[in-house]
Amino acid sequence: MPLLSLTTDFGTCDWFVGSMKGIILGIAPRATIVDLTHDIPPGDIAAGAFVLAAACRDFPHGTIHVAVVDPGVGGRRAAIAVKTRHFWFVGPDNSLLSLALANESIVEIRRIENEKLFRHPVSRTFHGRDIFAPVAAHLARGLKPSAIGPKISEFQKLPCTEARRVGNEIRGAVVYVDRFGNAITNIRGADLPSVRVRVTARGKNIGPLRDFYEQVPNGKPLAIQGSSGHLEIAVNGGSAAKTLRLKIGDSVTLQHAS
Amino acid sequence: MPLLSLTTDFGTCDWFVGSMKGIILGIAPRATIVDLTHDIPPGDIAAGAFVLAAACRDFPHGTIHVAVVDPGVGGRRAAIAVKTRHFWFVGPDNSLLSLALANESIVEIRRIENEKLFRHPVSRTFHGRDIFAPVAAHLARGLKPSAIGPKISEFQKLPCTEARRVGNEIRGAVVYVDRFGNAITNIRGADLPSVRVRVTARGKNIGPLRDFYEQVPNGKPLAIQGSSGHLEIAVNGGSAAKTLRLKIGDSVTLQHAS
Amino acid sequence: MPLLSLTTDFGTCDWFVGSMKGIILGIAPRATIVDLTHDIPPGDIAAGAFVLAAACRDFPHGTIHVAVVDPGVGGRRAAIAVKTRHFWFVGPDNSLLSLALANESIVEIRRIENEKLFRHPVSRTFHGRDIFAPVAAHLARGLKPSAIGPKISEFQKLPCTEARRVGNEIRGAVVYVDRFGNAITNIRGADLPSVRVRVTARGKNIGPLRDFYEQVPNGKPLAIQGSSGHLEIAVNGGSAAKTLRLKIGDSVTLQHAS
Repeated sequence: MPLLSLTTDFGTCDWFVGSMKGIILGIAPRATIVDLTHDIPPGDIAAGAFVLAAACRDFPHGTIHVAVVDPGVGGRRAAIAVKTRHFWFVGPDNSLLSLALANESIVEIRRIENEKLFRHPVSRTFHGRDIFAPVAAHLARGLKPSAIGPKISEFQKLPCTEARRVGNEIRGAVVYVDRFGNAITNIRGADLPSVRVRVTARGKNIGPLRDFYEQVPNGKPLAIQGSSGHLEIAVNGGSAAKTLRLKIGDSVTLQHAS
Repeated sequence: MPLLSLTTDFGTCDWFVGSMKGIILGIAPRATIVDLTHDIPPGDIAAGAFVLAAACRDFPHGTIHVAVVDPGVGGRRAAIAVKTRHFWFVGPDNSLLSLALANESIVEIRRIENEKLFRHPVSRTFHGRDIFAPVAAHLARGLKPSAIGPKISEFQKLPCTEARRVGNEIRGAVVYVDRFGNAITNIRGADLPSVRVRVTARGKNIGPLRDFYEQVPNGKPLAIQGSSGHLEIAVNGGSAAKTLRLKIGDSVTLQHAS
Repeated sequence: MPLLSLTTDFGTCDWFVGSMKGIILGIAPRATIVDLTHDIPPGDIAAGAFVLAAACRDFPHGTIHVAVVDPGVGGRRAAIAVKTRHFWFVGPDNSLLSLALANESIVEIRRIENEKLFRHPVSRTFHGRDIFAPVAAHLARGLKPSAIGPKISEFQKLPCTEARRVGNEIRGAVVYVDRFGNAITNIRGADLPSVRVRVTARGKNIGPLRDFYEQVPNGKPLAIQGSSGHLEIAVNGGSAAKTLRLKIGDSVTLQHAS
């Protein structure tokens, strides 16, 4: 029972995702396909990379993760398939896969070039359907890696946006805002000190780290370690993005409480 | 072929639903998962309860219904799994399951406490992924109920919002507004008299009960027994919510037409 | 492993699609169900017809395509199931299936009348759940066509909106706007001349046909053959619908470049 996940910016209003699934199931009829999301903002490679990295390890070993946020479709960017110890990742080589791959042990990287695997005619604007879906489906059926295309040694990476330690402080930033308006930062659980801390977001004091939302009154902000392991700024029963007007790139700082 | 349904307020923009499915399929690879909806307004337990109750009986016997609208996640609310004659219901004990359970014959109620079933580490904010998904997946594989946790005798219930009969009238209210702007009331089919009636919504005469939308001109309101069995206020080719500015809680009355 | 696709205007906020799937899987537990889209604008038969025609051939032979955009539900319109050489199409006879069927070789058309196949009680407003889903599921299990209902010879068709050739020009129109704001026209690939052309949209010069988006600077419009085979007006890194204020019905013209 091969399992594939799909992450795209195709939305769900049109037929794009349905067409990808039709192609996949035509090649691998027994595959199970799971949508990670198709609502990545159009062309937002960084958001797609964050989502894929946040979720890919919740899938069983052997899952083939297909990601398509591809503003350069039809142009010069390469298409790649990357085998890691536990997964396959298939998508454009535009740094979309890089945050997920940073946590994985890479076995080999293949440039997708074997046109026999593609849906024909290959359109200029929809490689999700014509290249990535059929290649992933063939992998689900056990295609050997060498049939994809030549081995390469590098892939495109997003610029690093790690939190920094400066004296007693950890200085990070909002890197993702979710549907609830939670502002997820690049400060990881491993960076969170065990001592009492004070969290500041966009200059505003958010108080200490909390254990659950209802520890603060309704409508009040809090800092909490979120489900992706990162520090998040939230509002109990509300949206931190709206209440605190937090957006991607805003600074979040963590200090020892004195 | 175990079947699971999912009802959440997680939206489809982020990875939350995908992660739940990854966890489920890692435990129960042959499960079929159906989305009821993930667009319950954030934290709106009453809306989630209505949706689950409206749809759960359209699924075959044996289906495991998982529902997660859980503003108290990480706090003191319990997690429960309820076996009924035909289904399992899994979710937080915050009254989310109560409207569905009101129509079912309950076999047993278990408090979810067996941490061996959970995904670890258990986050403080995403029990959908860490507790409800794996417990439901284990049930899909045939876990025996006693392995979930201790038997309990009660679960949280929403306050009753039944329509009332007052003399010749039935007095109800709008309890849900759907995507088409149909205002669904708490007046049930069994309450609808066979004699000619006159329906009033927010003080406005809507006329008699109709058989289908096109019985009134385009843009005009009508009353009809909807697919959930409840009386609905609709507008042919339009939205009753917009045209009549109907919202949840607005009064709808049914009188014998004289 | 029977495969069904679903195309509706039911949205994903309510339980309507989930209920259809519950009914299908109760009858055909081994079926795989793929969503084409459920976000057709409410009652927009032309949009539903376009989406179904654009995607149906990306599915393997034997797929059962179910489409429900059905403002006349409960009224006099018939329900039909159409067998073509490669697919089944199931839906209301309101021209929703007509664009897809225009490309198919039709084997037989059946009026859906066998009430034994339906979910009971049959609601007046939700034939997607009560009629189309169970009939499609029975087809997935191998129901013989004669059990659906009487053979008929015609189905409702949308008015023709083909592009016209006038002297050296091809005069077409925008027929669909997708999630990216690409304006898809009724000018097909086969109509595109191999000589250099100049494309005009709503009176504005869009330039020659391009091979990929990044051939023009960011924010600039271009004309390109889209993935459905039709000429599209796009904006690199943006939305043609917004930037050029293009909408359905707007004229798009193609002239030999002099």
